[in-house]
Amino acid sequence: MVVLFLSAVDSAADWQAELGRLLPDLELRVWPDLGDPTEIEAALVWRPPPGLLDRLPNLKLILSLGAGVDHILADPSLPPGVPVVRLVDPYMTAAMSEYVQLQVLRLHRQDPAYLEQQRARRWRTLPQPNAAERRVGVLGLGVLGSDAALKLKVLGFDVAGWSRSERKLPGIATFCGADGLEALLRRSEILVCLLPLTPATAGILDARLFGLLPRGAALVNCARGGHLVEADLLAALDGGRLSAAVLDVFRDEPLPPEHPFWAHPRILVTPHVAAATHPPSAAAAVADNLRRLREGRPLLNRVDVSVRY
Amino acid sequence: MVVLFLSAVDSAADWQAELGRLLPDLELRVWPDLGDPTEIEAALVWRPPPGLLDRLPNLKLILSLGAGVDHILADPSLPPGVPVVRLVDPYMTAAMSEYVQLQVLRLHRQDPAYLEQQRARRWRTLPQPNAAERRVGVLGLGVLGSDAALKLKVLGFDVAGWSRSERKLPGIATFCGADGLEALLRRSEILVCLLPLTPATAGILDARLFGLLPRGAALVNCARGGHLVEADLLAALDGGRLSAAVLDVFRDEPLPPEHPFWAHPRILVTPHVAAATHPPSAAAAVADNLRRLREGRPLLNRVDVSVRY
Repeated sequence: MVVLFLSAVDSAADWQAELGRLLPDLELRVWPDLGDPTEIEAALVWRPPPGLLDRLPNLKLILSLGAGVDHILADPSLPPGVPVVRLVDPYMTAAMSEYVQLQVLRLHRQDPAYLEQQRARRWRTLPQPNAAERRVGVLGLGVLGSDAALKLKVLGFDVAGWSRSERKLPGIATFCGADGLEALLRRSEILVCLLPLTPATAGILDARLFGLLPRGAALVNCARGGHLVEADLLAALDGGRLSAAVLDVFRDEPLPPEHPFWAHPRILVTPHVAAATHPPSAAAAVADNLRRLREGRPLLNRVDVSVRY
Repeated sequence: MVVLFLSAVDSAADWQAELGRLLPDLELRVWPDLGDPTEIEAALVWRPPPGLLDRLPNLKLILSLGAGVDHILADPSLPPGVPVVRLVDPYMTAAMSEYVQLQVLRLHRQDPAYLEQQRARRWRTLPQPNAAERRVGVLGLGVLGSDAALKLKVLGFDVAGWSRSERKLPGIATFCGADGLEALLRRSEILVCLLPLTPATAGILDARLFGLLPRGAALVNCARGGHLVEADLLAALDGGRLSAAVLDVFRDEPLPPEHPFWAHPRILVTPHVAAATHPPSAAAAVADNLRRLREGRPLLNRVDVSVRY
C-alpha cells in the first residue's frame, strides 16, 4: 500500500520508521515526491495544500496527523466520499491534559500576577482560594475535552463542561446547546477551549462570550487559533473583563514577531506544543486504520463531514 | 483560658473570630498587649521574638501558626518542657500540594524556557516527554511531603521520595538515610524540597547535592529559605548543572529588592504563598489542641524537640 505523507511540522523519517515496523509492506511517499499519483491509496497529512488530495484518483482514506481535522476540511476541493479520520492517541491525550492541568493551576494560583510582581521586585501575598473553591469550565467534551475535564476534577477543581450534543461525565456538571453554553459561561472563572474548529465554533471566543464570564475570568485556548477573535481578547484583558489568557494556538502560526500577544503582560504564549503528535505511539492508531481500510473493516475516529468533526 | 497571639503576617481579627466560635470562653490576647503574663496558658505564634515565651511563667503549650516549627525552636531561651505543636490543616496541605503540582508541571513542561522564548518573540518547539517519563523526587515525607508525592503520582509522574527515617507510600519508591539520599538525587530530574528545617537539613540544597542530580535538573523549594545555599544555586544555574528553580521561601523575607533571584531568568519567585495559613480551617486544629490541653488529653502533632520537628 502506498501512503502519501505531507507535513511541514512532522518528521517523515520518524513516521517511516514507526509505520515501517508495524506495516512492513507499506510505502510512505513523502510530499512533494508524489510519484505515480494513481498508486496512492491513503494520505497522512497536516495542512494539505488545497486541491492536492483531489488529484489522487484512487485515494480511499485521509488520515489527520493531529487531533483536529479542520486543516483538512478547509480544502474546498476535498474529494467527496473519501473518509477522513482524526488521530486519537492516548499519549497525545495525556499530553493535552497535562497542558490543561498546568495552565488551569497557573491561572488558579494567579501566576500571571506573581510573574508581574517578580518583574517589579514586589513581595505581596494575594488572597488565594483552594481548587475546590474554583469553578472551571471546559468547552468541548470530545476525547481531549473529556479527559481534561476529568483530570481537572482529580486536581480538586469544581469542573463543568459543555458540548454541542449532550454528554455525561462522572462528577462533572455538563451542559449542552445554546442555553447550556450561557449557563456554563456564567459559572466559569477559568475557561478552557478544546472545541473542534467548525463553521459553528469559529470565532466563538469573542466579546459576547467574554461578557458572560464572571468579571476577572481567565482563558486557556489549546484548540485552534480560529476560535478566538484576537481583538476582542485584547479589549477584554485591557478592560479588566478577563484577567489573563494562555494561548497555544493562533490564527497565524508561527505567531508573527510583531504580534501584540507576545508582549502582553497578561497573555502567555506557547508555540502550539500542548499535545505534539508523537510517532512512537500515534503510529499504532494510524496503522490500525490502514489495516482496517485494507481489510474492509469499519474505520475508527471517522469524521462526520456534516458537522465537520 | 488566655492564649497569646503573635504574628506579623496573620490576622489577629480573623483568628479571634474563628477561635471565638469554637471556644467561646477563650481570650485571645494579641501581642504586644501581654496584660498579666501569668494568665497566659498557651501561645499561638509565628516567629516569636527570642526570649518572649520564656517570660510567660504559666505557659503550657506553644502552637505554631504554620506547618513548620523552626521559627519557634530558633529561640535559644525557649522554655524547656513546654510542648510545641505543628499546625496540620487539610486545607493548607491541599494548598501546598496544588502549589507543588503546579510548579512540577511547569518545570516538566519547560515553562521557564517558553517564558524566555516569549520574551524573545521566538516560536520554537522543544522536545517534550510525558509525565510518566519524568522522574520527580520529593525530599521530606511528612504530612506535606507525603501528600505532595501522592498527588504528583496522580498526575502520572514517576515519583520517588526521601525521608530521614523509613516511610512507605503506595506506588512511590521511597529512600531513607544518607545512602538513600544519594540514590534519590541521582534519579530526580525535578526535585521538590518539603523538609523540616533542622540543624541536619539547614543548607542541604547546596553544590554537593546539586552535583548528584542529573545534569539540567530543576528545583522547587517550598520548605524554608534556610535549606538553600543561595550562592550555590546561582552557580548551578549559571553553569548549567540546574536548568531552573522555583522558590517560595527565602533566607530573608520579604526578599530584598536588590536580591539577584528577582531578575534571574531561570528563577521563579513567589512570595511565600504556597500554603498560607487559613483561619477558617486551621482554627479547628488549634481549638482541638487547646481542648486537649485543658482536658489533659494527649496533644496532636507534637514536635519531638530532640530532632526538632
